[in-house]
Amino acid sequence: MERKRPAGLGARKPGAAVRGGELAMLARIRAMAGATGAKSDRANGVRLGIGDDCALVAVKPGELVAVTTDFSIAGRHFELDWHPAEAIGHRVLARGLSDLAAMGARPIAAFLSLGVPATLVGIGKDGSGRLSGKQGSWRRELWREPWPESWIDRFYEGLLALAREFRTPLAGGDLAESPIAAADIVLLGAVPQGKSLLRCGARPGDQIYVTGSLGGAAAGLAILKALAGDHQPTGIAGLKIPRKLEAALAKHLYPRPRVKQGLWLRKRGAASSAIDMSDGLSTDLRHLCEESGVAAEVDAAALPISHGATLAQALNGGEDYELLFTSRPGTRIPRRIGEVPVTRIGQVFRRSAKRPMITLVTPRGRRALEAEGWEHFA
Amino acid sequence: MERKRPAGLGARKPGAAVRGGELAMLARIRAMAGATGAKSDRANGVRLGIGDDCALVAVKPGELVAVTTDFSIAGRHFELDWHPAEAIGHRVLARGLSDLAAMGARPIAAFLSLGVPATLVGIGKDGSGRLSGKQGSWRRELWREPWPESWIDRFYEGLLALAREFRTPLAGGDLAESPIAAADIVLLGAVPQGKSLLRCGARPGDQIYVTGSLGGAAAGLAILKALAGDHQPTGIAGLKIPRKLEAALAKHLYPRPRVKQGLWLRKRGAASSAIDMSDGLSTDLRHLCEESGVAAEVDAAALPISHGATLAQALNGGEDYELLFTSRPGTRIPRRIGEVPVTRIGQVFRRSAKRPMITLVTPRGRRALEAEGWEHFA
Repeated sequence: MERKRPAGLGARKPGAAVRGGELAMLARIRAMAGATGAKSDRANGVRLGIGDDCALVAVKPGELVAVTTDFSIAGRHFELDWHPAEAIGHRVLARGLSDLAAMGARPIAAFLSLGVPATLVGIGKDGSGRLSGKQGSWRRELWREPWPESWIDRFYEGLLALAREFRTPLAGGDLAESPIAAADIVLLGAVPQGKSLLRCGARPGDQIYVTGSLGGAAAGLAILKALAGDHQPTGIAGLKIPRKLEAALAKHLYPRPRVKQGLWLRKRGAASSAIDMSDGLSTDLRHLCEESGVAAEVDAAALPISHGATLAQALNGGEDYELLFTSRPGTRIPRRIGEVPVTRIGQVFRRSAKRPMITLVTPRGRRALEAEGWEHFA
Repeated sequence: MERKRPAGLGARKPGAAVRGGELAMLARIRAMAGATGAKSDRANGVRLGIGDDCALVAVKPGELVAVTTDFSIAGRHFELDWHPAEAIGHRVLARGLSDLAAMGARPIAAFLSLGVPATLVGIGKDGSGRLSGKQGSWRRELWREPWPESWIDRFYEGLLALAREFRTPLAGGDLAESPIAAADIVLLGAVPQGKSLLRCGARPGDQIYVTGSLGGAAAGLAILKALAGDHQPTGIAGLKIPRKLEAALAKHLYPRPRVKQGLWLRKRGAASSAIDMSDGLSTDLRHLCEESGVAAEVDAAALPISHGATLAQALNGGEDYELLFTSRPGTRIPRRIGEVPVTRIGQVFRRSAKRPMITLVTPRGRRALEAEGWEHFA
């Protein structure tokens, strides 16, 4: 993890450099990250990891490198008072893995640039942002013991647990003191030339599919907001989570990137286009239609709405990180890909001035579906 | 440039989405970035740029991908009141290019994750952070006309001018509203397998060299701080810059990444190890010695100190972004590489308990040189 000296706007501490603080922290992160295993790192293509000016990565002949970056900022993408540090780390990496999934790319490595306030480096076991539950299942699903001691350790623990699961070594990044917590995740993946899933390939007649279920992350966020509102200003540390809310909260706190499903679709040539659902169906389907130059109809009755979520959350709630893809008529798409359900939700049509870009078909009739997902600076 | 919906912590604006704000801004950035030229982008290896979930990049058989990320944060790495927006953009990219230079890698593409407060999106022509000079040379060197209108446009203008000069297309990234300005730059480069310049290759007897001059960036920063101090709270907008200060300020505001020099050294196999000087000679030489398992002696009288800089600034001032490299005894190193001077400043020795890791030799005697560069959380 290479380091850079900032503009010297803070006080220098001659003599203290290169012994404590940042360098010690980098050594600890390097040790934690090493747990993904040098052998599998090398198998992935990582030839040089943390420690020099750049990392070095190899791809096989005929493969392209897929690159994506995602910025997560405290107060915008997560809240230190609401979100457990492990969940923030998990979500940061899940965003990047989901982009690789949408291209049908195999993960090679992740790079993390992290800015954190000095206060977050030393938070103790009872620090803020710790969401605790007594139920075994909750703990098993949403937490990983033993608890690391500081926020930053717990953040990396959450990120690296997902990295290990998806065999994605953390091969570099940057670490800086910052007034606010902010994390930029970079993912590199590999995909055979000419084979990547793109947003622009949908054609009239194609069927539209989604993986998993929709609206769960938005429902989970609503629950978390309500819990946090009831427990201000102490936050939700130590709060008992009702068992029936666990699944919805998990969809929000620990989303599952659909890397396997993207690889499956790409290897079988089963999808004509794909995008990951980060902004919400109404917005992401619009992106896909715009890039493909087509229109779409969505059957509201067919939508796989997450347990506890509303139709509006399924249509406009973001961060489900499911895959939205199209397939040529006649292509056989199974009901499940790697244990994750796949549901046909609509069809692609020719774009025309007479029809909205996206039409929602409900038992009560047809209406235009406007994009109502998130937009910065809107 | 892919977008992600944040956790929904801000207010949604149904109906406003996917028309104004972020998407319009992304379209403008995409158009500005396009100026690097699709042809040269493709020649670099960029097969798919801004617009899908990932960018796609190709390398030649036998080449590795070099990856580096650098986080720059307002109040830590730059100040909105002091630094012209163009200079901030330039410096953000220069940091990344300098890391590629240190590995001897050819730039393929850059990716930028940018977080900005909404107020910076619409700053007018007289906005803060604008450092203006009447002198033609100053303007020619430090600014590029015509002025874009908003801070974010000017930031991209500075970044993209350097990107064009170094034929490094901006191929993706992320854009988010943020309480503070923060930019994470990701650079991808290509380097033949087994040929990259590394920190770990220095051996006893090797000669130590630096490109350009040292301490100029620190001297420029000191000038800028003094100017800013004299002109608070209005900042330095509209301030006339004395001609004699221009060169030192330029070293700080518009550092020159030594990409050509790194490529030259790598292609000729002339360097046994290399690092870029971001933290300062005393710190970066220590990194190189630690990774190589060697000690070093530096001849103070030989140091190419920047005009107006002190010995302390040359030893400990960071952000010069010059290359520090070693070369086997007998290797011919020219006095200039691509018009940039190269100076021998010392020699590598065997590490031993009897000598400090780095010894500074001055006319008044020898002393241990401690690392006094920047460290976060120190």
